[in-house]
Amino acid sequence: MNSSYAQKKADLRSVLTVYGRKSVLEALTDEMLSCQTLHMADSNRKGGIIADIEQRAAARGVPVRLHTRDALSRISRNGKQDQGVALDIACPAFAALDQGWLQARLVGSKAPLTLLAMDGVTNPQNVGMIIRSAAAAGVDGIIYPDKGLAALGPLVIKASVGTVFRAPLLRCERLLPALRLCQAQGIEVSYLDGNADNSIFEQAGAGHRVYVLGGETHGVSAEIRELADTALSIPMAGGVESLNVAVSAALVAYASQRR
Amino acid sequence: MNSSYAQKKADLRSVLTVYGRKSVLEALTDEMLSCQTLHMADSNRKGGIIADIEQRAAARGVPVRLHTRDALSRISRNGKQDQGVALDIACPAFAALDQGWLQARLVGSKAPLTLLAMDGVTNPQNVGMIIRSAAAAGVDGIIYPDKGLAALGPLVIKASVGTVFRAPLLRCERLLPALRLCQAQGIEVSYLDGNADNSIFEQAGAGHRVYVLGGETHGVSAEIRELADTALSIPMAGGVESLNVAVSAALVAYASQRR
Repeated sequence: MNSSYAQKKADLRSVLTVYGRKSVLEALTDEMLSCQTLHMADSNRKGGIIADIEQRAAARGVPVRLHTRDALSRISRNGKQDQGVALDIACPAFAALDQGWLQARLVGSKAPLTLLAMDGVTNPQNVGMIIRSAAAAGVDGIIYPDKGLAALGPLVIKASVGTVFRAPLLRCERLLPALRLCQAQGIEVSYLDGNADNSIFEQAGAGHRVYVLGGETHGVSAEIRELADTALSIPMAGGVESLNVAVSAALVAYASQRR
Repeated sequence: MNSSYAQKKADLRSVLTVYGRKSVLEALTDEMLSCQTLHMADSNRKGGIIADIEQRAAARGVPVRLHTRDALSRISRNGKQDQGVALDIACPAFAALDQGWLQARLVGSKAPLTLLAMDGVTNPQNVGMIIRSAAAAGVDGIIYPDKGLAALGPLVIKASVGTVFRAPLLRCERLLPALRLCQAQGIEVSYLDGNADNSIFEQAGAGHRVYVLGGETHGVSAEIRELADTALSIPMAGGVESLNVAVSAALVAYASQRR
């Protein structure tokens, strides 16, 4: 029973449910996406964009399930904005961040493992840009906690220019225990800090490492600074005191892959 | 007469005029800025924020000049949004991009000269972020044409988090002749193109070079592709097809300084 529950939970981690009529229609139109199930509220009026959605789903052979309005809200997790429509998209690059995943990757990897984490980045525009850049750089995983980060919803998806569906998101509940888990597997935890002595350009890519980027307002939280093994900086000239967090993430992600 | 006119024009190039009551008050409050002259419309009603602006200017010894509403519009170049207030800020790192500047810098430089240019980047948010990142990386100049780029105004200043006042902006009228001038001085012109064979990480920093970044919608224009000596790409993994232009600019700027 337990292992089947764990399996189901792991499966849920690799599904992203999008909602809203326009977002769902767009996703159904993207041939690169693996659409699993279309969920519709039985209260939806027929015709218009609802008819377009149904036609597109039928053409692609995507099964449709009807729900009460309440049940649909629980599926979309956003009853206020789902407009009675939700779509499950399979994201095979997603994984639940747990000991099993880490061990499998560490055994199999020839190059140093590079993970990226965000601590309190609440602007979905930045989160989406970070996912896009990190995926482009080829990092092994982007830790995505359910709490303390912009929700994995339409704004993040839009800002990622759709790259989120193919990005290696490592999903977990909260960041701190996830970082402890990484540390226990011998992965160094480093956070970015403009005042740190060591530069990412000297240190990046030297060993298994998770890079933690702090939020726009408060930076990296005290408890994560406490936990971390090292602090790293991006050198700045010209009297500039800080960089945009999405820019920092891109520099870190590419630096980690350049050794 | 001619040389005095040229001198005056060059001086104007190293002044940035901000406008709007809140922006002007903010600038007057920033001790790092060299505020030259406060311009006020004689129609401004006294008191409130106008009184704050006058007090702050007096405390810093910034001279005040009164103008008719029309004359003030010509100074701010934005009569609709200046709210009767404009402030000249001296930006000593600004220069007019001409043969003299290029020759002086090429003679004096031990390291390869790195310039950054934007072609048709119309989103002020991106332009501001690019200036901030390029200044932080320590590039030698950011070419800023009067035409074909988001106006050097409040939105760009805000997105740059104020770094624009200290950034090495090379001002000119249009980008194409400016690039020809660079080329005539032996500076290689390279544009960024996702499909180019050569990676910036292999090539950057190898010689004097100006990197041209294309706009959000159309990329680098045909006439600049034609003119350019080389095309360079940022390698992308994970099926990602492009990067945000501000992210690309940061990667290019830092790569150029890492040799």
